[in-house]
Amino acid sequence: MAISLSGETRLFPVVGDPIAQVKSPALLSALMADRARDAIVPPVHVAPADLAPVIGAFGMLRNLDGVLVTVPHKIAAFSLCSRVTDRARFAGSVNVMRKAAGGWLGDNTDGQGFVNGIELAGQSVADKKVLLVGCGGAGSAIALEFMIGGAAQLALHDIDQARRDRVIDALSWRFPGKVVTGGTDPSGFDIIANATPMGMQPGDPLPVDVAGLSSGQFVACVITKPENSPLVEAARQRGCRTMNGLGMFMAQADILADFLLFSDKTARED
Amino acid sequence: MAISLSGETRLFPVVGDPIAQVKSPALLSALMADRARDAIVPPVHVAPADLAPVIGAFGMLRNLDGVLVTVPHKIAAFSLCSRVTDRARFAGSVNVMRKAAGGWLGDNTDGQGFVNGIELAGQSVADKKVLLVGCGGAGSAIALEFMIGGAAQLALHDIDQARRDRVIDALSWRFPGKVVTGGTDPSGFDIIANATPMGMQPGDPLPVDVAGLSSGQFVACVITKPENSPLVEAARQRGCRTMNGLGMFMAQADILADFLLFSDKTARED
Repeated sequence: MAISLSGETRLFPVVGDPIAQVKSPALLSALMADRARDAIVPPVHVAPADLAPVIGAFGMLRNLDGVLVTVPHKIAAFSLCSRVTDRARFAGSVNVMRKAAGGWLGDNTDGQGFVNGIELAGQSVADKKVLLVGCGGAGSAIALEFMIGGAAQLALHDIDQARRDRVIDALSWRFPGKVVTGGTDPSGFDIIANATPMGMQPGDPLPVDVAGLSSGQFVACVITKPENSPLVEAARQRGCRTMNGLGMFMAQADILADFLLFSDKTARED
Repeated sequence: MAISLSGETRLFPVVGDPIAQVKSPALLSALMADRARDAIVPPVHVAPADLAPVIGAFGMLRNLDGVLVTVPHKIAAFSLCSRVTDRARFAGSVNVMRKAAGGWLGDNTDGQGFVNGIELAGQSVADKKVLLVGCGGAGSAIALEFMIGGAAQLALHDIDQARRDRVIDALSWRFPGKVVTGGTDPSGFDIIANATPMGMQPGDPLPVDVAGLSSGQFVACVITKPENSPLVEAARQRGCRTMNGLGMFMAQADILADFLLFSDKTARED
């Protein structure tokens, strides 16, 4: 369905800096039109120093119901929420906020989008052995979601060992014995996931040793530019099934629309 | 051309309270698409008490270039501009603002839209005798524009005589001897214009004595709901040519787009 505008259009802006690269204005506006909602996702370019007053003003706009948050605002936006979901609290950041009584309810759907995208690509997560490289904001959210999804074992790798250990400790409290230290050898894992930016720049090293990949494994990557990262390309050459960053984005679009349009049944508000 | 959204879309919101009735999101967004601009006019519902902080936040948004202003914010928005055009200063209100060095440049295009609409309908204004009923915000802007357009004589009527006399005095300083007191009898005028809300509610009295209308006269009206006011209907029955509020709105859309997109050649900044 085509995007249209009227005096009754509801607003769900996406805030970022820069903003020109974001895909949500086109894709999420179209998704809301598909759902027969008179609603759009306008891009909003706001610098970090201006985020708090801009979100404050958004709170005053009576036809604005929610905000999507992208780089570099996800951590700052967390602190502007009056309530957050478990997922957002674990990540320490939000990528979406909606108006709630007395303020903003924040959520972080980055992990859900990644894991839902893998399942939509036909790869179940339950009872699988997973290697995840990258324990930053996206990586820690994805790690939580692999465990919620029932992974049998999750091995984590990050060049920042302290950061890796913090995520292992945080998850082990809830999933004892299942979250362990990993490396760059993908042998023996069912699912190999990259949550680092390695592959965005030409000449980047690969996040795992792709010589250890073989058909039957599933490889997933957060990178959207290039559309297929060198890791995804190498995995396909070795016969692996894959999910690229667009797969994550498309799976996440539905989750975001559910949350923004109040049709979400699973978000835990606490 | 269809409206689309991307990360590079520029924003020109329209602020009002209420907002559901505004036509500019649909019509001006389509006009910008016709001009091959990646730009939209989202509706923004903001209460009077929140206007100043919201406009302040708009100043921080780096992909927002201008703002359309509708009821009840036109006078308050004037005071938020760092510079205004002659037309806006005469009206004491703005219906459009764009970012300028150090603040906002405000303009008021209500009068231009009305008079351009009359000319686009085939009725010249130069050297004509004009009766204008209503000397409020829109009426005074329209009065100025009739005189800029070269009307031979402009007769003004308003039930608030002090308000009428203030407009006559203000215009007479610039156009001596041409702006006079009028009444409700349209006889002898080339153009009869209504800038009052009379005709929006069932049972409203007509702004002029329509028994005095005859073919050869041109009747113009600011009212958009109903699309053709009782005055316009009565004028058509008597063989007059007419312009309704939509004609004003469509003529104004081009003027507003010119101003917002910086392609305006005539706005005097001072």
